[in-house]
Amino acid sequence: MSKIAIDVMGGDNAPVEIIKGCVEASKETDSTLILVGDKDIIIKELKKYTYPSNRIKILHASEVVTMEDSPTEVIRRKKDSSMVVGLNLLKDKKADAFVSAGNTGALLAGGTFIVRRLEGVQRPALASLIPTDKGYSLLMDCGANTDAKATYLEQFARMGDIYMRELKGIDNPSVGLINIGVEEEKGNTVVKEAYKLLQDSSMNFIGNVEARDISMGEADVLICDGFVGNIVLKQMEGFGLWIFKLLKEELTQNPIRKIGAAIIMPALKGLKDKFDYSEQGGAPLLGLNGLVVKTHGSAKAKQVKHTILQSAKLADQDVVGKIKQNISI
Amino acid sequence: MSKIAIDVMGGDNAPVEIIKGCVEASKETDSTLILVGDKDIIIKELKKYTYPSNRIKILHASEVVTMEDSPTEVIRRKKDSSMVVGLNLLKDKKADAFVSAGNTGALLAGGTFIVRRLEGVQRPALASLIPTDKGYSLLMDCGANTDAKATYLEQFARMGDIYMRELKGIDNPSVGLINIGVEEEKGNTVVKEAYKLLQDSSMNFIGNVEARDISMGEADVLICDGFVGNIVLKQMEGFGLWIFKLLKEELTQNPIRKIGAAIIMPALKGLKDKFDYSEQGGAPLLGLNGLVVKTHGSAKAKQVKHTILQSAKLADQDVVGKIKQNISI
Repeated sequence: MSKIAIDVMGGDNAPVEIIKGCVEASKETDSTLILVGDKDIIIKELKKYTYPSNRIKILHASEVVTMEDSPTEVIRRKKDSSMVVGLNLLKDKKADAFVSAGNTGALLAGGTFIVRRLEGVQRPALASLIPTDKGYSLLMDCGANTDAKATYLEQFARMGDIYMRELKGIDNPSVGLINIGVEEEKGNTVVKEAYKLLQDSSMNFIGNVEARDISMGEADVLICDGFVGNIVLKQMEGFGLWIFKLLKEELTQNPIRKIGAAIIMPALKGLKDKFDYSEQGGAPLLGLNGLVVKTHGSAKAKQVKHTILQSAKLADQDVVGKIKQNISI
Repeated sequence: MSKIAIDVMGGDNAPVEIIKGCVEASKETDSTLILVGDKDIIIKELKKYTYPSNRIKILHASEVVTMEDSPTEVIRRKKDSSMVVGLNLLKDKKADAFVSAGNTGALLAGGTFIVRRLEGVQRPALASLIPTDKGYSLLMDCGANTDAKATYLEQFARMGDIYMRELKGIDNPSVGLINIGVEEEKGNTVVKEAYKLLQDSSMNFIGNVEARDISMGEADVLICDGFVGNIVLKQMEGFGLWIFKLLKEELTQNPIRKIGAAIIMPALKGLKDKFDYSEQGGAPLLGLNGLVVKTHGSAKAKQVKHTILQSAKLADQDVVGKIKQNISI
């Protein structure tokens, strides 16, 4: 079975919620979990729970990467941080995946310099499954490359195509380019050039997808640079939260509405579940020579658990090997 | 009173809905409306309605700009199109504003080449008021400049600041830069440079605003390039529509839920009104030597009406003069 390393010191709710998430995950997977971080803290936290102790290991790391650390300096300056130790574990093939909720920039830089890119890959990209009317679309890049070249975008599409085909069993995934209009000549310089590259590729490229159509599930794979992808992802989250806030305000305005609200509560719950990001786990950083998975900085135990379970699945499915095999073709 | 010219031939629902919108607007404003387009069609359509005939004029234009027309060629090749005739009317000061639902690219190119930029303005920008938890934020640019330089962004902020200060009466408008993180060093090359320019300005710059916080109304003025702005605007629209679709599906799933839905209908209506784009009119193209207002390509009569009323107000408030006075300071 696969071995999943977890950075228990990274993220807004580390280490308590991360360790709790590990414990919860350990009950639902046969994978071995390697908790990387301050040994004393981990031992103390683990004492709170019962768990299959043969499947939870501890690897001590004395330092912690903070949000203030410069991404490019982390590798040099914090060699004994939970993040760097975890990435080295992955590089040395002592773990099959590494999960972190910590500093995204540092994880990207560390992933690229320690785990290294797969041969032929220009830039790794964060890939997130986002909920749509048809199920899910894979949005990439979600934040790894704020300045992208057209050739990067074309490669993101190829990695996304492989992901949806090999790991999600979608036959001929449709690939769309996020743009400000459907016409070929729309967009900025990079996007226009990427359009041509995608059109000339053998992928099932369906053209530009306007932001208005993202939620309808227009394409299985949605391509954009990391700046735009991050905006799309976070706006969805923020706008969704706001709508629920407004709905709550409207529904509690008077006693009659409160009665109606009580009746339709299951409907609202159904709707909310659709947008529950904590069940969607994290975003793998595709294109590296090892499986690095970023989860939300504010992730709590539930999301950590789902990210670990998802990472174990991706490791078992050999996502890295599948991309390696197909990217150079 | 002001004179508002309207391109009745532009947009998905032209000319029927545009003309209907003009008639509806004529009953709510003292401005004179100049309907620019095919005379015969306009006369035929106007016969359907009663309206204050002294306030609706017709200006014949024999050609129509289509979505397929190349923006840069419209001025040369379609000199007698409703769009070019309307823009010339504005240039010659025979109209105080020009409203169009037509080809955005052509309107931008035509606005820049015919109406011209105000002295000192590098690029005009589309400014949209978007609904937020605190009321409205001005989002700009919403699609005029897909490739922007940092200095453009700084100028968009200055125009937005003037708009909110002078026309919306907000004392010291907060200005935020849309970015993928709140930290100063976040973002792409252009955004990082713009951050420094904004920080050095005298504006009330509050720093980066993450997409997740847009809907909470973090800043009065939200700055981004036209690619990102268009994505933000359209995703909001599409995601909102999807949520209402899901809500409807959930609420009609069984008879009990239908009863609950009937009780809370006023609450849902209240929520929907908050996102009703048709009441928000259009987006002025700020930075030109005349007031050009773009409304939604799919605008129907109601939105056309609101855009005309909003344009009349902006013309009366002399938005162009206010920007002219303040931009060079």
